[in-house]
Amino acid sequence: MVRIGVIGCGYWGPNLLRNFLKIPECQVVIAADLDPARLEAVRRIYPAITTTTSAEHVLESDAVDAVVIATPISTHFALARDALRRGKHVLVEKPITATSAEAEELSRLADERRRTLMVDHTFIYTGAVRKIRELIDAGEMGEIYYYDSVRVNLGLFQHDVNVLWDLAPHDFSIMTYLLDKEPVGVSAVGASPVRWDGWKLESLAYVTIRFSDETLAHFHVNWLSPVKVRRTLIGGSRNIVIYDHLDPDNQIKIFDKGVKILEEQQRYQALVQYRVGDMRAPKIDQTEALEVACQHFVHCVLTGERPLTDGRVGLRVVRLLEAAQRSLDGGGGQFTSLVGEPARAGAVNASERKGS
Amino acid sequence: MVRIGVIGCGYWGPNLLRNFLKIPECQVVIAADLDPARLEAVRRIYPAITTTTSAEHVLESDAVDAVVIATPISTHFALARDALRRGKHVLVEKPITATSAEAEELSRLADERRRTLMVDHTFIYTGAVRKIRELIDAGEMGEIYYYDSVRVNLGLFQHDVNVLWDLAPHDFSIMTYLLDKEPVGVSAVGASPVRWDGWKLESLAYVTIRFSDETLAHFHVNWLSPVKVRRTLIGGSRNIVIYDHLDPDNQIKIFDKGVKILEEQQRYQALVQYRVGDMRAPKIDQTEALEVACQHFVHCVLTGERPLTDGRVGLRVVRLLEAAQRSLDGGGGQFTSLVGEPARAGAVNASERKGS
Amino acid sequence: MVRIGVIGCGYWGPNLLRNFLKIPECQVVIAADLDPARLEAVRRIYPAITTTTSAEHVLESDAVDAVVIATPISTHFALARDALRRGKHVLVEKPITATSAEAEELSRLADERRRTLMVDHTFIYTGAVRKIRELIDAGEMGEIYYYDSVRVNLGLFQHDVNVLWDLAPHDFSIMTYLLDKEPVGVSAVGASPVRWDGWKLESLAYVTIRFSDETLAHFHVNWLSPVKVRRTLIGGSRNIVIYDHLDPDNQIKIFDKGVKILEEQQRYQALVQYRVGDMRAPKIDQTEALEVACQHFVHCVLTGERPLTDGRVGLRVVRLLEAAQRSLDGGGGQFTSLVGEPARAGAVNASERKGS
Amino acid sequence: MVRIGVIGCGYWGPNLLRNFLKIPECQVVIAADLDPARLEAVRRIYPAITTTTSAEHVLESDAVDAVVIATPISTHFALARDALRRGKHVLVEKPITATSAEAEELSRLADERRRTLMVDHTFIYTGAVRKIRELIDAGEMGEIYYYDSVRVNLGLFQHDVNVLWDLAPHDFSIMTYLLDKEPVGVSAVGASPVRWDGWKLESLAYVTIRFSDETLAHFHVNWLSPVKVRRTLIGGSRNIVIYDHLDPDNQIKIFDKGVKILEEQQRYQALVQYRVGDMRAPKIDQTEALEVACQHFVHCVLTGERPLTDGRVGLRVVRLLEAAQRSLDGGGGQFTSLVGEPARAGAVNASERKGS
Repeated sequence: MVRIGVIGCGYWGPNLLRNFLKIPECQVVIAADLDPARLEAVRRIYPAITTTTSAEHVLESDAVDAVVIATPISTHFALARDALRRGKHVLVEKPITATSAEAEELSRLADERRRTLMVDHTFIYTGAVRKIRELIDAGEMGEIYYYDSVRVNLGLFQHDVNVLWDLAPHDFSIMTYLLDKEPVGVSAVGASPVRWDGWKLESLAYVTIRFSDETLAHFHVNWLSPVKVRRTLIGGSRNIVIYDHLDPDNQIKIFDKGVKILEEQQRYQALVQYRVGDMRAPKIDQTEALEVACQHFVHCVLTGERPLTDGRVGLRVVRLLEAAQRSLDGGGGQFTSLVGEPARAGAVNASERKGS
Repeated sequence: MVRIGVIGCGYWGPNLLRNFLKIPECQVVIAADLDPARLEAVRRIYPAITTTTSAEHVLESDAVDAVVIATPISTHFALARDALRRGKHVLVEKPITATSAEAEELSRLADERRRTLMVDHTFIYTGAVRKIRELIDAGEMGEIYYYDSVRVNLGLFQHDVNVLWDLAPHDFSIMTYLLDKEPVGVSAVGASPVRWDGWKLESLAYVTIRFSDETLAHFHVNWLSPVKVRRTLIGGSRNIVIYDHLDPDNQIKIFDKGVKILEEQQRYQALVQYRVGDMRAPKIDQTEALEVACQHFVHCVLTGERPLTDGRVGLRVVRLLEAAQRSLDGGGGQFTSLVGEPARAGAVNASERKGS
Repeated sequence: MVRIGVIGCGYWGPNLLRNFLKIPECQVVIAADLDPARLEAVRRIYPAITTTTSAEHVLESDAVDAVVIATPISTHFALARDALRRGKHVLVEKPITATSAEAEELSRLADERRRTLMVDHTFIYTGAVRKIRELIDAGEMGEIYYYDSVRVNLGLFQHDVNVLWDLAPHDFSIMTYLLDKEPVGVSAVGASPVRWDGWKLESLAYVTIRFSDETLAHFHVNWLSPVKVRRTLIGGSRNIVIYDHLDPDNQIKIFDKGVKILEEQQRYQALVQYRVGDMRAPKIDQTEALEVACQHFVHCVLTGERPLTDGRVGLRVVRLLEAAQRSLDGGGGQFTSLVGEPARAGAVNASERKGS
Repeated sequence: MVRIGVIGCGYWGPNLLRNFLKIPECQVVIAADLDPARLEAVRRIYPAITTTTSAEHVLESDAVDAVVIATPISTHFALARDALRRGKHVLVEKPITATSAEAEELSRLADERRRTLMVDHTFIYTGAVRKIRELIDAGEMGEIYYYDSVRVNLGLFQHDVNVLWDLAPHDFSIMTYLLDKEPVGVSAVGASPVRWDGWKLESLAYVTIRFSDETLAHFHVNWLSPVKVRRTLIGGSRNIVIYDHLDPDNQIKIFDKGVKILEEQQRYQALVQYRVGDMRAPKIDQTEALEVACQHFVHCVLTGERPLTDGRVGLRVVRLLEAAQRSLDGGGGQFTSLVGEPARAGAVNASERKGS
């Protein structure tokens, strides 16, 4: 039996609570939040769970084996570090930390203490993403040519992070999981058209990632779209996949593709025709991804198995975020390297970064 | 009565023919193409039109008042120049020329000879684009924040130009028409995953354009998509427009938008919520854009009026293409300026540019 | 404080539980189901709720003010009747009962005992349906010409009712709520292509309803569709509405409509053109309908107000179901009257109706 | 070489002209219409074609081998009869005639004179419909359970026929081609909410067709829809097909389907779950159907082969229209038989049928 304490009962915390409560091998014993109203809402539905406004109570409690952290990004590191130091297992929201140095430190600590450290890259646990991985592993995609992702939103602006740190972790984690390639350069451009009382963060950004083999990955993240889009194109030499998270009937569409010369009429003509063949949309397992992730965490805690999205994976995503942020901070456009540069303090603390 | 000669009867030429034939104020007298089979196809349907394999015959004919040029880009300049020198009016396919120097020369010639010079930026003549322009002019969009365009294709690869010069002219012309802003920098990245017998051109590219006022425009052009997409988002401070060329029922959707603070719970919190209001899709005039363009050309020839898409407009689009190409050639990502740089020979001649 | 007992913890019961738990003015004290595994699942998440395999315990408990019934249709009447007789308020799943005689009896009982009797016609509590009602009330639709509904499903076959009694209650309740018209005839055709171990019920059906003023309503209900569709067209003389429950961005689209003569070329010609004008998709309140319904029930219990979907409304829907069933049983197609015919035992008990 | 005369240059005539002009084995020599303006439009584009306001000129001309009839339905019979009597081949628009007696007479005449008689059931010549036929022939659908068609329109009201005779011929011809089953009963309901100067015809109708083996086919035809829909569901025991004529990317979607018992928990429970498997959308030949039809007609004229859509096929469609009209005229709903009843004068002449 894994006894769980949850820190943070804002937007995502209750979803974690609900899913852990479904798992017979674990028990949620305590929930913390700074806001008493949120705790009151938790108690109304789950009167058996102790609530507290002090994260310390959770971290110190002997009744807690594992801590689930669903707080603002800037607090992830200190909470996770303290939990690991006290011998607790940790599941932390994405991105794992605000800097790669912090992510490295957490990974080191978890290894040292032999505790499970997992980052909640939820999309890795969807049926759709796992299906694409299967296609790639089975060689059905051929050589990957490009990866194009659009994640645009009608959701909440974040007060402490820009759109890059809010939305891109999802896509960077999916891409990192799917493509077995080494990124070598990251370029980003962004804009901050909306300002509020000194608040001025990028609310849209475009990120390009280059790999050692010329594959191109591109990401559009945007808080200013009137419609929600979560759509990824993965172009391969054999097939092209469209992954549309919001199309429940056809989350994944696989297009047969063939590029072939039609005829050679003369020397200077290399007429190539793009042939579109059949399309198929395989049945996708629709189990709630967060449920799968919570089960995986409990399983890893109980067995000592390494989570699919452990601290190292969390670190890779933070490195991409940092590199993109460096490109943004440098005026935009230029490719920045991921390798060999010392990790700077990230973009998460808006007031500090923006100098106010 | 405007007597028209058409040079080039490949993909687009027959569409021009068909539309000019509908206009009572003009007559198509001659059509030229290097390929006799294409001329045979023209004669079968329109036996009254003279055909020839010699563009010279069209340019020299006294029976021709205006020349319509629908040939590969690299030939536009010489054909248009010769036509203007012989006192003919000219309608030329997009992009107007392969270099900005050539475009300037054509504009100069047209002014000198007092002839109509028009570039077929077809999309400017759609009901949808004109409708968006009306919205902007009426102040309904507020301040423009961003312009995001996706034009991806399952069409033919071009043997002589990359995807940038093939598809981006459409979007650059639409953006130039809609936004009354001065571009100050262009950045592009691309990839050439498909190669054929020495043919190796970018088949996908992302272009970012900066304006003096921080507005961001971004373009995704791609020959390797399994589905055709022509979708533009224009985000303004008052409304956001989605223009989907392929959604006949709702080519333009206008979303009411409001950004407002919901509540201020504490000092460091600037919680902003994105409110989505009503959407409306106005009725769009569905007259074929090419018909409108052809009528506009005939009208300008007859009245001496300056075309909406004259040589200067064509030049602006070529300058953006050149700047994007410079960024691609420089390795990608960096912003290149549009001003003050000498125009280089463009990207259109693949074999030359790529050094083979 | 309303103390609630829930009978039935299958598919819908837990949704009712979850929503009542959000309401501060009520408390869920006991939950019953024949299946101990379901009760175990309830206890794991809500350890404070008493569980029982006996519906009697709920009905007899002094700690219960209101009973929520989410059991198979054939059991609705007896459970609701016993609850009312014991002075409890009742919320019952749709359709209220298996026969109109039963529905009348429940209404009578509720009036006599002065208790709240509400049927969970959930869709009436959606923002979308309430919005359409507003449009109609404001005269924006003009005269209603037709009502066309498609509700096709990839969901569960029911073992005890045919597709008519499973799906049509939703549409009949929406239509009854929206159209202030008296149905005068109901016609239905159906098919039972799927059979299983003696199970043979209609799995698709088409129902047509006539009103005294010639308005036509038509319903397609189907368990054998590969995709889920919930789409209603309401055609009026001034506007036409498309209500698509599954299109979250545009649940309601309102089309300006105009029918006008274009030209009269000759005596026998009455050329009429259908003009499509603008479309608009108003913002729809997305509060979960079941939450609104549960709040409404609690409010009615506390205030004595009559529910929007009381026993009389439930009765009207059952009468339509009975009339459609009579048409089906008569071979299909013929219109059957709603008035003056004695209510027969309904279609709900498959084995009985089908002659076993 | 087949020399063709076209009678009727309204909406569809020019499309026929354009397609016949593409075929090297034929020649369009003459075109007739009552309206000189339409003839003027034809001459402007095709100056080589003779035009006339007299259909007689076409029928009598020795220069004409085959007559193409694209006139109002009520004139089909007399024109086709006269053409056949004069030894000409005939292609006639759908429906072939206004009554089944007329259709029989034309078939008889064509056989007697050994001339090609073909009805332009255009949809039979689409890649999509031929693909579905292949699927059925290959046994991939299994047993056909139901056929559900929606064809709703924002097009022109017809002044001389109701919506049934305008739109249903398309669907009846597709269904007749696809299902190798004998219809045994037809039921229809309709409404005529729009009235104009004495004009009052059904502008929406629902038709149900029963087959000897209980298969159900249902059709919704409607002139009062704000959006255009052409969507057919064909449900089989092995697969279900959705044919959406207006979705160019996925005209045909094939859904694997399986109905299986999940578990038997108790005696009275026959819990059946509907499983949705993979979907695939095969590549569909996008050649313009009318071009295929025109080629087929020319081919049949030259070879004497029997057209796929000959007079007998045209007759079957008219019989279904007549039976549906009888059900409408009888008040709606009742099934009418197709067999053994004398063919009455059809619904095509509105003024006569409606008694004005």
